[in-house]
Amino acid sequence: MATEAAADDGSGSDAPDAYDALLDRVRRWNTLGSAAGVLGWDQQVMMPEGGTPARSKQLSTISSIRHDMLTDEETGALLDELADADLTDEQAAVVREVRRDYERADAVPVDLVEEISETGSEALQAWEEAKAEDEFETFAPYLEKHVELKREYAEHVDPDRDPYEVLFEDYEPCLSMERAESILEELREALVPMIDAIRESDRELAVDTFEGEFPESDQEALAHETLELLDYDFDRGRLDVSSHPFTSGNQFDCRVTTRFDESDPLGAIGSTIHEYGHAQYNLGLPQEHWATPLGESRDLSVHESQSRLWENHVGRSRAFWETFLPAFQEQFPDTAEASVEDAYEAFNQVYEDNLIRVEADELTYHLHIIVRFEIERDLVRGDLDVADVPETWKDKYEEYLGIRPETDSEGCLQDIHWSHGNFGYFPTYSLGSVMAAQLFAAAESEIEGLAESIAAGEFGDLHDWLGENVHRHGSRYETNELVKRATGDDFSADAFLAYVEEKYGELYDL
Amino acid sequence: MATEAAADDGSGSDAPDAYDALLDRVRRWNTLGSAAGVLGWDQQVMMPEGGTPARSKQLSTISSIRHDMLTDEETGALLDELADADLTDEQAAVVREVRRDYERADAVPVDLVEEISETGSEALQAWEEAKAEDEFETFAPYLEKHVELKREYAEHVDPDRDPYEVLFEDYEPCLSMERAESILEELREALVPMIDAIRESDRELAVDTFEGEFPESDQEALAHETLELLDYDFDRGRLDVSSHPFTSGNQFDCRVTTRFDESDPLGAIGSTIHEYGHAQYNLGLPQEHWATPLGESRDLSVHESQSRLWENHVGRSRAFWETFLPAFQEQFPDTAEASVEDAYEAFNQVYEDNLIRVEADELTYHLHIIVRFEIERDLVRGDLDVADVPETWKDKYEEYLGIRPETDSEGCLQDIHWSHGNFGYFPTYSLGSVMAAQLFAAAESEIEGLAESIAAGEFGDLHDWLGENVHRHGSRYETNELVKRATGDDFSADAFLAYVEEKYGELYDL
Repeated sequence: MATEAAADDGSGSDAPDAYDALLDRVRRWNTLGSAAGVLGWDQQVMMPEGGTPARSKQLSTISSIRHDMLTDEETGALLDELADADLTDEQAAVVREVRRDYERADAVPVDLVEEISETGSEALQAWEEAKAEDEFETFAPYLEKHVELKREYAEHVDPDRDPYEVLFEDYEPCLSMERAESILEELREALVPMIDAIRESDRELAVDTFEGEFPESDQEALAHETLELLDYDFDRGRLDVSSHPFTSGNQFDCRVTTRFDESDPLGAIGSTIHEYGHAQYNLGLPQEHWATPLGESRDLSVHESQSRLWENHVGRSRAFWETFLPAFQEQFPDTAEASVEDAYEAFNQVYEDNLIRVEADELTYHLHIIVRFEIERDLVRGDLDVADVPETWKDKYEEYLGIRPETDSEGCLQDIHWSHGNFGYFPTYSLGSVMAAQLFAAAESEIEGLAESIAAGEFGDLHDWLGENVHRHGSRYETNELVKRATGDDFSADAFLAYVEEKYGELYDL
Repeated sequence: MATEAAADDGSGSDAPDAYDALLDRVRRWNTLGSAAGVLGWDQQVMMPEGGTPARSKQLSTISSIRHDMLTDEETGALLDELADADLTDEQAAVVREVRRDYERADAVPVDLVEEISETGSEALQAWEEAKAEDEFETFAPYLEKHVELKREYAEHVDPDRDPYEVLFEDYEPCLSMERAESILEELREALVPMIDAIRESDRELAVDTFEGEFPESDQEALAHETLELLDYDFDRGRLDVSSHPFTSGNQFDCRVTTRFDESDPLGAIGSTIHEYGHAQYNLGLPQEHWATPLGESRDLSVHESQSRLWENHVGRSRAFWETFLPAFQEQFPDTAEASVEDAYEAFNQVYEDNLIRVEADELTYHLHIIVRFEIERDLVRGDLDVADVPETWKDKYEEYLGIRPETDSEGCLQDIHWSHGNFGYFPTYSLGSVMAAQLFAAAESEIEGLAESIAAGEFGDLHDWLGENVHRHGSRYETNELVKRATGDDFSADAFLAYVEEKYGELYDL
């Protein structure tokens, strides 16, 4: 038993001593990181407001201890020793992942990291004020400072590379910027005319089927039922409410949150299924590799692919509503007359006039992302001035989405991310959706009668396929290799474009 | 502002550099400890069952990091440097507290601490089995091992002192064993005949007033109302349900839990007020000293004095029921006929035939404790063999409480504490109650019309008195000095004995 466990995590008598020592450090480092995750969950879900000062200090202390552990000379020495060691594939994967984290943490001065973090706190306040008052000028100096600091950060990591690429790698360390950029371009080229065509279409969807008042307590009961229908393991999870839905946890305990809007019952269902998809990924990671790279999820695009797959390819499908509509109607008897087709149309309508990313549909969503991606990329590359952001934003919305925001509050100030200096993060949202389509297409072709199973409320085969092809690998493979092993093809936009063309072509008679 | 804050925590330009460096270490150490506290709260209140393996690892990792920080050579070097330094009273108090923790942690080998912890896990399982089967023999070897390991532990700390005294100091580092032992003896001598007399008394209390079924949800609403009546600050706290009521947190965020028994509404009220008292202590600690000894509570007896003061001297008083009974009756209209006197009698009845500590009243409780104290003390001192524990237990119950348990499950196996090897912990329960009486008597003599204020639902003066005399001092003073400053007298059993003699003399016509 002990030997098996040892063999499983790549350590044991055959592993070089330096490997075992490294793994030991990594485990402590990651275990402490997972403890911080619990503190973060508590902060957003349970903590009374007054707890903030102590919580901030707890989190920053853990973060600083983790930084010291990672950048300790001993970590570097062990990595050096292992550079030419004879390692198994698993061991090599662990060393590769640790080295990448180590090198970045080691390259960037702690003072700069702290300055970025402090700028984030000030910028957050300025952003809140700017958004409330619709005054971009209030936020502009902080955005400017973030751009400078992040360029400096990128220069420390690698002065010879495109700084935006370097920042992108904080979220997508092993997906090439070139591939990501070309996928986003393909999306823009295909989606802009498609949304134009939808605007022109005469087809009226059954959008008013789910209008009315849907009490929060009933929505909460339904959210629970939704998770039960999807076989969420409540012995390893929880459902709670928070102002922004999120998922937090690991393969032993992974919790989701959702939120409710009494006029929009489909919103909570979508967000519950979305977070469920994230949770399934974490719950499917191998327990024996917990707190090592082999037991940690791959990066943000892969994580988002799991949430989007369940939200869009399952939750927004006709098959899902076959099994789910009766539960919905039992909770909300006023909708008893609605058909599966009505629900399908209501859940898939395209909001042509919506300016707000978080309220976007499956299709326009990507143009919201692409606007942000292009602007932040150009800022970081020095091709755009902060002062020009508001007008550039409006121009791009007009060009890509056919609508022009009148204010900056519903324009370039709408999202929180830039107040944290999170440049490089937005693209992962779109990349995840694209990857979801590619993975789901592969699952569909390998699982016989998948739609029929879903319509019968049976999700086991899909769970198994994702577990086998994605979850159990942890961070063993780099992103493109993971996708290629799962689907047979390099990561590309093909499946996504085929999916939306077919789906929305049919829905809107394009 | 910065200067003031610096002066407040005893650091700043006048403090030796070594002091600032020590304070910095202590803050990290305590902050990490408070993070572990959040993980512990979550584990008992929110965590799904499956989370145990990850949580155990998170807690043991934090514990090991804290141990390394505390016993680091640098800590010792700073303490040495400060041994003869010119320090303010506050600085000296901080150094005194850190030195005590450091010396104990440094004296005991890590391996031994781990062995005790592992024995605890095995012993817990054996204890559960032994209790379920009523077979002391199943547990005996683990109890034996705990006694041996804890004697070894004590020897590492100080081979020349009474080992039980050394263990007691893990919970009461600055209260003398001699004083504690003499207080417990006084209690035994006074309470044994008093309980005998109550057994002989013909007086019948109105114990059946609160019999019936009291739904959990109504009890929960009432528990909330109780906390609101007592001015619990919900912006810095929460009320939840757990299988064992407890309090967790600090001056920014201190949460309580309670539990409900549908046949015993007074139990939940008592436990809610008890935990509230603990929480008020933590919430009253100075925020500017958080994560240093000046912002941490004094030891277990002082903490228990705060919970007992509110539970017994407020919650079990006629004055409290004057203000509380209407709220109770509104929640439970079936009790509309009950008078304040009925409630007072029901809440203060003495359970002469009860064998179970956690179900004991304010009076017999101490004899339950004293039995445990005498047995564990004699075990650790080598004056009693493990094999003789069951009979000794029964004999002592017969002698002190006039009842003899028939089984070990309701005898020496009833409590969990010895399965953790927690010798020295039990006495703090009684010491806390005794201290509560002394503090409350002092508060009564200093606050004019205290009972009238309580009867009017006004608790502000008592809060202020406790804040001023206990809470704000953190660990600045050692236990007896804290009590003496608050009450004018050394810590003794006098006030407690006067209180119970008067109260129970009147209740039972003694």
